[in-house]
Amino acid sequence: MTACFFERHQEKIESAINAIQDRGFYSAYPEVPSGKIYGENAKSDGKAFFDSVIGSEFSLSQSTNGNWIGDESSPYGINLGVSYPDVDIDDLMTSMNAACQAWKKSSVETRVGCALEILDRLNKKSFDMAFAVMHTTGQGFMMAFQAGGPHAQDRGLEAIAYAYKAMLDCPSEATWKKQVGKDDFVTLDKQFRVVPRGIGLVIGCSTFPTWNSYPGLFASLVTGNGVIVKPHPKAILPSAMTVRVCQEVLQEAGFDANVVTLVADTEDAPKTEALVKHDAVSIIDYTGGSAFGEWVEANSGDAIVYTEKSGINSIIIDSVESMRPVSGNLGFSLCLYSGQMCTTPQNIFVPKDGIQTAEGPMSFDDVAQSIVKSVDWMLSDQGRANEVLGAVQNPATAERADGVQGDVLRAGDGIEHAMFPEARTRSIKIVKTNASDLDAIATECFGPVVFIVETESTDDSIQLASSIAREHGAISCGLYSTDDDVIENALDAMTSAGVPVSCNLVGNIWVNQSAAFSDFHVSGANPSGNATLTDAAFIAGRFNVVQCRTCIPAPQKVEA
Amino acid sequence: MTACFFERHQEKIESAINAIQDRGFYSAYPEVPSGKIYGENAKSDGKAFFDSVIGSEFSLSQSTNGNWIGDESSPYGINLGVSYPDVDIDDLMTSMNAACQAWKKSSVETRVGCALEILDRLNKKSFDMAFAVMHTTGQGFMMAFQAGGPHAQDRGLEAIAYAYKAMLDCPSEATWKKQVGKDDFVTLDKQFRVVPRGIGLVIGCSTFPTWNSYPGLFASLVTGNGVIVKPHPKAILPSAMTVRVCQEVLQEAGFDANVVTLVADTEDAPKTEALVKHDAVSIIDYTGGSAFGEWVEANSGDAIVYTEKSGINSIIIDSVESMRPVSGNLGFSLCLYSGQMCTTPQNIFVPKDGIQTAEGPMSFDDVAQSIVKSVDWMLSDQGRANEVLGAVQNPATAERADGVQGDVLRAGDGIEHAMFPEARTRSIKIVKTNASDLDAIATECFGPVVFIVETESTDDSIQLASSIAREHGAISCGLYSTDDDVIENALDAMTSAGVPVSCNLVGNIWVNQSAAFSDFHVSGANPSGNATLTDAAFIAGRFNVVQCRTCIPAPQKVEA
Repeated sequence: MTACFFERHQEKIESAINAIQDRGFYSAYPEVPSGKIYGENAKSDGKAFFDSVIGSEFSLSQSTNGNWIGDESSPYGINLGVSYPDVDIDDLMTSMNAACQAWKKSSVETRVGCALEILDRLNKKSFDMAFAVMHTTGQGFMMAFQAGGPHAQDRGLEAIAYAYKAMLDCPSEATWKKQVGKDDFVTLDKQFRVVPRGIGLVIGCSTFPTWNSYPGLFASLVTGNGVIVKPHPKAILPSAMTVRVCQEVLQEAGFDANVVTLVADTEDAPKTEALVKHDAVSIIDYTGGSAFGEWVEANSGDAIVYTEKSGINSIIIDSVESMRPVSGNLGFSLCLYSGQMCTTPQNIFVPKDGIQTAEGPMSFDDVAQSIVKSVDWMLSDQGRANEVLGAVQNPATAERADGVQGDVLRAGDGIEHAMFPEARTRSIKIVKTNASDLDAIATECFGPVVFIVETESTDDSIQLASSIAREHGAISCGLYSTDDDVIENALDAMTSAGVPVSCNLVGNIWVNQSAAFSDFHVSGANPSGNATLTDAAFIAGRFNVVQCRTCIPAPQKVEA
Repeated sequence: MTACFFERHQEKIESAINAIQDRGFYSAYPEVPSGKIYGENAKSDGKAFFDSVIGSEFSLSQSTNGNWIGDESSPYGINLGVSYPDVDIDDLMTSMNAACQAWKKSSVETRVGCALEILDRLNKKSFDMAFAVMHTTGQGFMMAFQAGGPHAQDRGLEAIAYAYKAMLDCPSEATWKKQVGKDDFVTLDKQFRVVPRGIGLVIGCSTFPTWNSYPGLFASLVTGNGVIVKPHPKAILPSAMTVRVCQEVLQEAGFDANVVTLVADTEDAPKTEALVKHDAVSIIDYTGGSAFGEWVEANSGDAIVYTEKSGINSIIIDSVESMRPVSGNLGFSLCLYSGQMCTTPQNIFVPKDGIQTAEGPMSFDDVAQSIVKSVDWMLSDQGRANEVLGAVQNPATAERADGVQGDVLRAGDGIEHAMFPEARTRSIKIVKTNASDLDAIATECFGPVVFIVETESTDDSIQLASSIAREHGAISCGLYSTDDDVIENALDAMTSAGVPVSCNLVGNIWVNQSAAFSDFHVSGANPSGNATLTDAAFIAGRFNVVQCRTCIPAPQKVEA
């Protein structure tokens, strides 16, 4: 069975390994939510699945104390009422340690095969997942389908590819033969074993519960570790669906389902701190806000910790051929998912004396107005606005945005949702400020708020963007310039501050996007996180190679 | 010049990269201290160099406050009286940060070329280094030559090979082209930059000042970081000689010598803690005792830390073909460098009812006596004893050994040194005890002390050895058994506890040995250290890849 899994997906993993080395475009799971690909009834089946889950007990094949917990409600205004098996943490660890004995001894190909089969089955459930992600995160349907389904699956496959490559990097056997005299040799037979660290804990976030969790989940799993998925208490369902598929595949392959488990909790009775501090947890993957992420980093004991926290992202506008395609591009970036992506720009730096364009100089205010108009246009059609903005996941995000004051160029009031009248919505608030207003621009303001910042010059913009990144972290930076020297200076400053830069993006590609197999997400080189999705460092700590060497006696004589 | 360095040594780095993937025997630097290889006068030149250094000021091309410090004395009884440039730490960091600007921007091949040239020049100075290592560590001359010279250089080359491979793993450029419509494509030009973390601190130990420091030094250096070498205050000279060569090569290649610096100190005024806590230090490599190693791990802030600490190593004797070659092999392992290797066995576990041999059963006491006799024979000739034992580096090690009491099978008194009458020497003390004596066997007793431990059975021996390794760490384990099931059980238990196992070693290969390019030194999977010399994990955290992506406009139309 498990051999079948690996063979069934062998071509895919080989393509993925090629892709992470080429870093050109590659995707294993189709991002188009088409009935031709996913089945004519896939969307209605997904909706039916979601309806059937509402108010139900979502069963899993794992250690449980018999209680059911959960308290999720959709940002679109629906009470989900799903409950999940509750656990006693010590009992869970005991079950997982027992389950992991066979898992860690299984072959690398067995584990990779199981993981690939899990992704394949998750891909087939992409429409189910889309509804679950939409109604926990508040994403629009299209984004929930893509980011929650195929894009998350691609990031999972990417992590498997890195892990498989890392485990293959050392041979499992070698013969070491050293000449120690004219005709004398010492010969050792060497075996190299992949020894997993133990149990990995994957702490998910409320906005991208699958996309941000799959890399850690699959990286720990295929390297032989057990995995606890600990979702955000407001976005459990996508994780529970994922864990259920993991457990089904593990059981079919002859393993104990407790190799991958879910720990659900509620905001009133959180469990994450107890898990982070538990001795049995030896790997932690965290996605979420910086404050709690720093606590995790500081309180994880001997566990290895990979964090994807938050930052303050910048757009630097120096000069453009034409402002219209630039503001068109930026407008969509700012509106997408109401600014709740960790890659959404917060600060747009523009020199106070304006910028150069091919059509002549353009004032600061004209640049700002061009951006405002682009957002206005994007949100002028209710259907488009609802789909692009989605809903606001957390009431605190809406309150934070409402509280932002100043020279407001564009108000951020709610926009009525055509399908879900109870949806929590906000428009994009745009505020004009200047480089001295560090309270605004050097404090993360997660959500639908954008500052357009007057600077002395583009050099000042670069200096501000890079120093904020060094001090507070940044995950993305968009640069617009037609001047090669400015581009080179900005690239030097921002990459030295650990910020990936997107230059002169126009058309159907946005600064918020991060493509698996090509784009590294979070560099690990500034306070926005210590890890990258995905590179070799993201894998290296999840297992050790431990060797045995055995003396092969010389054929003729043995020396004492 | 720097291009020449890379081309000059390109074949060597390519061979090294092949070697770390094959893991068969490979060595780039000859371990035989032969005049035919190193020059007819190499040994006398080395001695002359050493004599000339004694009592002198050892100049370096780096930031200094103008003072000279140092307080080394040879374990062979010679006061070295060498002094080194003292530094103001903040000034040093300023100089290094300035020096690193050009270094981090230089090409990967430039940095690799410089590092290979450094190793090449260090190799040519192997006899100089042998005297320096001998008279700081107390190693015998042959060991000081091999471990201090070519074996250390091999470990440095191995680290360079892993680092070069890791940096090449991601292409520096890629074109990403995604189809977004029937005839529409988005094309991005992507650049991937290696961004070093900053300044690496390499904290050396007093017993293997080069072998244990070169991997961290070269791994940090070629990935673009500056490096501070902070030797043990009693073993500065080998590090200072290394730093001088680094600075010479860096300057010849057009770089500021402050890219690699020495921070010397004395036991009375130590500087390590201030360096560990300094904000500018972002990578720490530590070799030394567990207590201070744990302090370093806990106090390093945001710096990435790689530790090689200490552990409690075991020999498990279950059954043998013949005891004589086994005790012959063990005798040398126990005597070598007076038990001051981090891989030297401390506990030898033997079932109380004795073991099976091809010649019939053998009692516990006969096994113990066989080992005692082998050590007696090894040390029966004064010249051999002096060369094999060397001298005891630290007075505390001698005192610790002297204080060990119990059922002493072999006394550990000093052995007179033929050449150096003032040498600090101890013989190998062998003590019989049993499995319940955890004060002895579950406490590290670094130095010339061995416990032969009565256990209930081989299963008991395996359980003890593995549980001690899990709790206190272990770096090596020797197993003797003729039973395949026992071997498999022991391998499972010990490798799960992160301990490499050497099976049935006899002849010219010893459990203490660790060969570059084939043996992983310290697994990283138990408390003896969190890092391995050398694997991908040892490199991965020393740099990040940060990308830039630039929109390539479509040839026909641009969408807004």
